[in-house]
Amino acid sequence: MTSTLILGGARSGKSAHALRLAEASGRRPAMIATAQALDAEMAERIARHRAERGARWRTLEAPLDLPAALAQIAAEEIAVIDCLTLWVSNLMLAERDVARETAHLLEAMREKELLLVANEVGLGIVPENALARRFRDEAGRVNQRVAAAADHVVFIAAGLPLTLKAPTIS
Amino acid sequence: MTSTLILGGARSGKSAHALRLAEASGRRPAMIATAQALDAEMAERIARHRAERGARWRTLEAPLDLPAALAQIAAEEIAVIDCLTLWVSNLMLAERDVARETAHLLEAMREKELLLVANEVGLGIVPENALARRFRDEAGRVNQRVAAAADHVVFIAAGLPLTLKAPTIS
Amino acid sequence: MTSTLILGGARSGKSAHALRLAEASGRRPAMIATAQALDAEMAERIARHRAERGARWRTLEAPLDLPAALAQIAAEEIAVIDCLTLWVSNLMLAERDVARETAHLLEAMREKELLLVANEVGLGIVPENALARRFRDEAGRVNQRVAAAADHVVFIAAGLPLTLKAPTIS
Repeated sequence: MTSTLILGGARSGKSAHALRLAEASGRRPAMIATAQALDAEMAERIARHRAERGARWRTLEAPLDLPAALAQIAAEEIAVIDCLTLWVSNLMLAERDVARETAHLLEAMREKELLLVANEVGLGIVPENALARRFRDEAGRVNQRVAAAADHVVFIAAGLPLTLKAPTIS
Repeated sequence: MTSTLILGGARSGKSAHALRLAEASGRRPAMIATAQALDAEMAERIARHRAERGARWRTLEAPLDLPAALAQIAAEEIAVIDCLTLWVSNLMLAERDVARETAHLLEAMREKELLLVANEVGLGIVPENALARRFRDEAGRVNQRVAAAADHVVFIAAGLPLTLKAPTIS
Repeated sequence: MTSTLILGGARSGKSAHALRLAEASGRRPAMIATAQALDAEMAERIARHRAERGARWRTLEAPLDLPAALAQIAAEEIAVIDCLTLWVSNLMLAERDVARETAHLLEAMREKELLLVANEVGLGIVPENALARRFRDEAGRVNQRVAAAADHVVFIAAGLPLTLKAPTIS
C-alpha cells in the first residue's frame, strides 16, 4: 500500500493530477471530499465535480473526521483526499486541536492506497490577519507531517509534477 | 521551433533568464511586452528596460492582442512574451474572455521560436479580495494550458531554473 | 569552505533542515539569529529556540550587522544565518540601503562554512500594501544575489529539499 502527497498552489492542477493517478491505478476510486456545501454556490460546485468524476467513483464527505472516512476504504480501493488544507481550515473553525487530529490521520493513513491533495500556502508575504497567519502555520505543519509519512511527495506547478520524495528501491 | 514557459515568483529572475536564453539562441530577439505605460513611472520603467536590452532587440507592445504580435515574428527571430500574467490582468480589466483569448494564443504560438514568462501567484494565502481570487484562478488556468502546449517548462527560484518539462528524445 | 542557501516558505521546515545539516557536518555549530526580542512573546520564542538547540550551539544576535557576526565565526565552526528575509525587513525598518548591505554580506560570506535560511515570498498575489511590495522586491533581489554566490541552493517544501544548485565536480 502506498500513499502520495500532491502539493501545489491554487489552480496548479493538483486535483486533476490526483484524479488521473487514481484512474490509472486500476483500483476502484473513492473521493474523500473535505468541502462542505455551506451555500448554494458551493453545493452546485460539489455536485458538478461529482458528475465530472462519473459513476465509477464513490464519494465520502468528511469535512472533519478523515480517520472515519478512511476506515470505510476497502483494500481494493484507492482514495483521494481533496484537500488537507481545507480540512485544516474546517478543524480550526470547529476549534479542534489540529496537531492531535493530524496524529489520528497519520495512524488512519496506514494500510490504505491513498492520494492526498494539499495546498502550499506559505510562499507569499506574511498575512496581516492573525488568523490567516495561524492557518498558514497549521497548514504548513500538517504538510510537513504528512510528507514525512507519505511514500511519494510531488509538487505541482502549472499542471506539471516535480518529485520531492520517492520510495527507495531496496 | 520550440516554446519555453518560464514560471516564477516576483523578483525570481524569470525575465533575466528569458533574456539570457534569447541572447544565447543566436536568433534575432524580439520583446513582446504586455505592460502599458499608464503613468509616468511605468513609462520610465518601460523605457529603461528597452534601453537595457539594447539596439539588437526590437520591441512590440501587446497589452491585449498577443496573437497579432506573434503574427509579426519572423522565422529567423526569437520572441520573449513578458509577461502572460500581466496579459491576464489586462484582459480581465478589458472584460475579455480569458479562456477564449488563451485558445487564440495557443494557436498563434505554433511555428514560433518563443519564450513565455509567467508569474506563479497561487502559493500564498487565499486573497480576501474576490477579484484577486478570480485573477489567481484565471492566471493559474492560463499557466496550465500554456505549460501543456509548451515544449519546455522551467520554474525559477532565486534566479535558478528547475526543469518541470523537457522534450522527450525520440 | 562551502555555503548553502536554504529557500522555502513559512513552516516549510527550512530552519529544521539547516539545523540538521549543521549538526551532521561534525563542525561546532553557531546560530546567527536575525530576530529581535521586541516584545515578551518574541523573547520567549527566542529563548525556547535557544534551549531546543542545546548547549553545543553558541548564538550570536545580528538583526542588522551580519558581516560583524560572520567575522566572529572561526574556521572550525559552521554558522546558520536564520533568516535573511527577516534581516531584509530589519534593514528596511532601519532605513539602510539593502543593496549595499547585501554586497557587504557577500564579501563576508567568503571563507566561512555557512548555511543561510531565506523565505521565498514572491509566489502569492501582488500585495495591496506598497511597503509589502517593496519588501517583496528587496527580499527577492537578496535571494538572487545570495543564490548566485552560494555553492549549494535548495528549495524546501513540506520539509523536503529540491536541489536548485549543486557544485560541479571538477
